[in-house]
Amino acid sequence: MITDRLKKQLEFMIELDRMKNLYRQTYVLHENRKENDAEHSWHIAVMAFLLDEYANSKVDTFKIMKMLLIHDVVEIDAGDTYCYDEEGYKTKALREEKSAQRIFGLLPDDQKEEFYRLWREFEDGQTNEAKFAGVLDKIQPLILNYSKNGISWKEHDIYSEQVSARNRNTSEISSDLAEVINAIIEDAVKKGWLKI
Amino acid sequence: MITDRLKKQLEFMIELDRMKNLYRQTYVLHENRKENDAEHSWHIAVMAFLLDEYANSKVDTFKIMKMLLIHDVVEIDAGDTYCYDEEGYKTKALREEKSAQRIFGLLPDDQKEEFYRLWREFEDGQTNEAKFAGVLDKIQPLILNYSKNGISWKEHDIYSEQVSARNRNTSEISSDLAEVINAIIEDAVKKGWLKI
Repeated sequence: MITDRLKKQLEFMIELDRMKNLYRQTYVLHENRKENDAEHSWHIAVMAFLLDEYANSKVDTFKIMKMLLIHDVVEIDAGDTYCYDEEGYKTKALREEKSAQRIFGLLPDDQKEEFYRLWREFEDGQTNEAKFAGVLDKIQPLILNYSKNGISWKEHDIYSEQVSARNRNTSEISSDLAEVINAIIEDAVKKGWLKI
Repeated sequence: MITDRLKKQLEFMIELDRMKNLYRQTYVLHENRKENDAEHSWHIAVMAFLLDEYANSKVDTFKIMKMLLIHDVVEIDAGDTYCYDEEGYKTKALREEKSAQRIFGLLPDDQKEEFYRLWREFEDGQTNEAKFAGVLDKIQPLILNYSKNGISWKEHDIYSEQVSARNRNTSEISSDLAEVINAIIEDAVKKGWLKI
């Protein structure tokens, strides 16, 4: 007998497949196409246990990984909002809240609450875990973009100041990763990939 | 100052991007293309904390997630071996061992050992964690394939006995997920998606 509980969990798991068709602004390195949310979430979840030693405060890596694996699930209904799209950001919170209600609502009540809480914690960015997860979420596209000659910065005419502003609080969360970001921005400006 | 240690970790992280271009035999549900290793690894890592209550023995879900996130990294050099490809399976172990040495060898020594150990544990399939991870690794393509009308079974003329054999030990590891697998196989045979 397959219980209703397990049926709901499998329905949620099947719904998640839509993450594989949600394309971001970042490119993958070895094909001429953009990265999708499933790939991005996988990459940063690995980075969580690869790089957790660089969190300035002690963090619960297991929680960070769970957060990162599901933080973009709300984009299934709400779509990806490019991080330098000021208009899109005005409606992002509302769109994503509605999406979270529907998608996590597929789950049994206890897991609906657990998944919603993880997502909400990430979005609120107040705990050490949410803060470090946020740094990983931002540094991964930065590194990929830099490794592909600044391709999406050039496409969108991004200024170095926009990238710096987006990463301004990183040094409080991870001094070492803040240094990586600064070195990348500096070199990208030198190479003409970011405008000044 | 960006340390040599951090440089190695970032080099590894960039190398991992190749997982996004390693295509499996399973299709994604909402595009006409195959799934890649990054997407697959993400999907099953979420399933680890979604479905861990169905492990017959108590398991360390954090460890399972780490295992699942990196278990296919060796395919960067060794390629994907289709689970019903008997010839490919003869050389799989050797190809993957060489690949593990090179790819995990990009890491600082302590992490090289940690990542190698996680991969080895998964491959050996002896611990409760490796066993449950193995079930998730096998049930995810089964569910996707079933949700897409048996597409890759039909492409490869797969017999129900091959799928049953591949999942034979599941009931010892997870009685509930074994029931899901049996129900899927039974219905797929009825629909003519699996041969008998």
